[in-house]
Amino acid sequence: MTTMTPPRYNAADLVQFSAHLFEMAGMPSDRALVVGSSLVEADLMGHDTHGLQLASAYLDSIEHGLMTVSGDPKTLSDHGAVITWDGQRLSGVWLTATALDLALDRAKTHGSATIVIRKSHHIGCLAAYLTRATERGCMAIIASSDPSECSVAPFGGKQAVFTPNPIAIGIPTANDPILIDISASITTNGMTARLKHQGQRYPGHWALDSDGNPTDDPSAILTDPPGTILPIGGLEYGHKGYGLALMIEALTQGLSGFGRADGKASWGASVFIQAFDPAAFGGLSEFTQQTGWIAEACRATPPAPGHDSVRLPGDGALARKRHALQSGLQLHPGIMDNLAPHAERLGVVMPSPR
Amino acid sequence: MTTMTPPRYNAADLVQFSAHLFEMAGMPSDRALVVGSSLVEADLMGHDTHGLQLASAYLDSIEHGLMTVSGDPKTLSDHGAVITWDGQRLSGVWLTATALDLALDRAKTHGSATIVIRKSHHIGCLAAYLTRATERGCMAIIASSDPSECSVAPFGGKQAVFTPNPIAIGIPTANDPILIDISASITTNGMTARLKHQGQRYPGHWALDSDGNPTDDPSAILTDPPGTILPIGGLEYGHKGYGLALMIEALTQGLSGFGRADGKASWGASVFIQAFDPAAFGGLSEFTQQTGWIAEACRATPPAPGHDSVRLPGDGALARKRHALQSGLQLHPGIMDNLAPHAERLGVVMPSPR
Repeated sequence: MTTMTPPRYNAADLVQFSAHLFEMAGMPSDRALVVGSSLVEADLMGHDTHGLQLASAYLDSIEHGLMTVSGDPKTLSDHGAVITWDGQRLSGVWLTATALDLALDRAKTHGSATIVIRKSHHIGCLAAYLTRATERGCMAIIASSDPSECSVAPFGGKQAVFTPNPIAIGIPTANDPILIDISASITTNGMTARLKHQGQRYPGHWALDSDGNPTDDPSAILTDPPGTILPIGGLEYGHKGYGLALMIEALTQGLSGFGRADGKASWGASVFIQAFDPAAFGGLSEFTQQTGWIAEACRATPPAPGHDSVRLPGDGALARKRHALQSGLQLHPGIMDNLAPHAERLGVVMPSPR
Repeated sequence: MTTMTPPRYNAADLVQFSAHLFEMAGMPSDRALVVGSSLVEADLMGHDTHGLQLASAYLDSIEHGLMTVSGDPKTLSDHGAVITWDGQRLSGVWLTATALDLALDRAKTHGSATIVIRKSHHIGCLAAYLTRATERGCMAIIASSDPSECSVAPFGGKQAVFTPNPIAIGIPTANDPILIDISASITTNGMTARLKHQGQRYPGHWALDSDGNPTDDPSAILTDPPGTILPIGGLEYGHKGYGLALMIEALTQGLSGFGRADGKASWGASVFIQAFDPAAFGGLSEFTQQTGWIAEACRATPPAPGHDSVRLPGDGALARKRHALQSGLQLHPGIMDNLAPHAERLGVVMPSPR
């Protein structure tokens, strides 16, 4: 039996390829390029469930009329420092990148700016947007929830109310940025499906079965009626993850004015995007002096048993990105296979490995 | 052996008493009233380690010149939607209440407003400020760190870098507000001291000893060299609490431009205060429709084994407050004993139980 090493691609070729796919599917070319490069950025960072893996699902969505390819978001309110958009089910990847860029522009004027989006299509990998902010010397927070889904129970309960509710934070320092990407739940739907597929267990009691009993079995989430994923803190102090979940529900669905109260049929992600310009507060160099000091203090912390070193969030992703840009990007084998029919249908030539 | 029931006081008498203490210690009377009422508010909500318990320490601070009693914070920047203050070591309780009120005013103009404060004195109980926002139909986020202290290790490390880094979130609904008060660490210094004093253990492996080994022994934090409190997620997924800790360090010390990089001698809390006016986003009734729906969905969730019901963050505190306002407020016995010498020194009459 031989194991085939997955081929390596030039990242630029994958960006061009995926952008071409979305363009041929009807998206304006500049927008298609934002979507393609954001998906490849996620792969470069190692978030391989939220990179090009999503492209075939997005192309399916376009084909079935579930993602709008052209037109602009509808501005529901604009007060300078805060903006509310109806995303019109446009690409969430494009909406999020565009909203963050706009929030950064507005933060240069107002010090901080917040944009919330209702009825966005799926926004992909939250961490992949953060360097848009940190490269401009700004801090950004992105959070998202999906009112049409739920898999996470409130603390003390045994039925799902929330999505995992991711939140990502980009923090500039004098050197590499800190890139945080976490969720209010212990684990995610994607990780649950992957562990179940691999016949593995959660590393701890991260879920409840449908009777509310703690379990490390990912298949307990997928029964009928389903079990639930626990908020961070789990059985011991799950009120903390529960609090974060509620905060993110309020920031995304509350502020955008669209969410679970509108019923499950009302599909669409709700998104919160916030930018801070440190120059408008205590100063950019004062900001990076503090964040750089903290980053170095963490890296210099003696490791606990079982750890080689203390890393900063984003260190691993940035190292993977540098390596993949130099040596080529390896994709999971199934990704290109899933895109091949779309490429054929849309008349797009598949990229060659380097 | 008889057990004495702690006496019950009228909350208004305790506010008047503590305000009088701070006034006689040199604070302007309106400011003293804000401090007294905020401390009593914490007691009413049941946060009894962060209510009047703190008053004697604050009065000590004033006596030793560590808390400034008069004068204003120095405005380092003001861009309308964002403000940076040097707190001049004024009362953190007064600064926080005043900054939140100002942020709420500014949010009415700009949609959202952010105030960061460097060099504040201790800010007390974060949850006690939240109804200032929710009663005005606004959402608020308050976070704090103390650059002069550290007890929480970064994930994978065995030396402290962070404080517990509390974050509180107030969310209006159509009925009772949601009042969240959590921290980026599993437990706090106060809880650790209390458990050790009572000869109890943490309910799980919430700490590392000074060698980095997991422990449920609170005294492991207080050895020389000291152990560390774990970030939320602990050994299994402590990168989540670590990420939150870094976010709060950046929001408080990064934006205010003052923190750990300035050395431990530079004592003072760094504070982040943010207000959102839902009316400037998708609308207040749209906001409370979503948050009210979520609150009801949580309350209606069937409880898991070991839980009687699912509660919302703040439900318990608001019930305790209603009961104490009706039936009188019971304080821990030591609190009035600690205040008696201050009252005598300052010529303030102790309040009578009802």
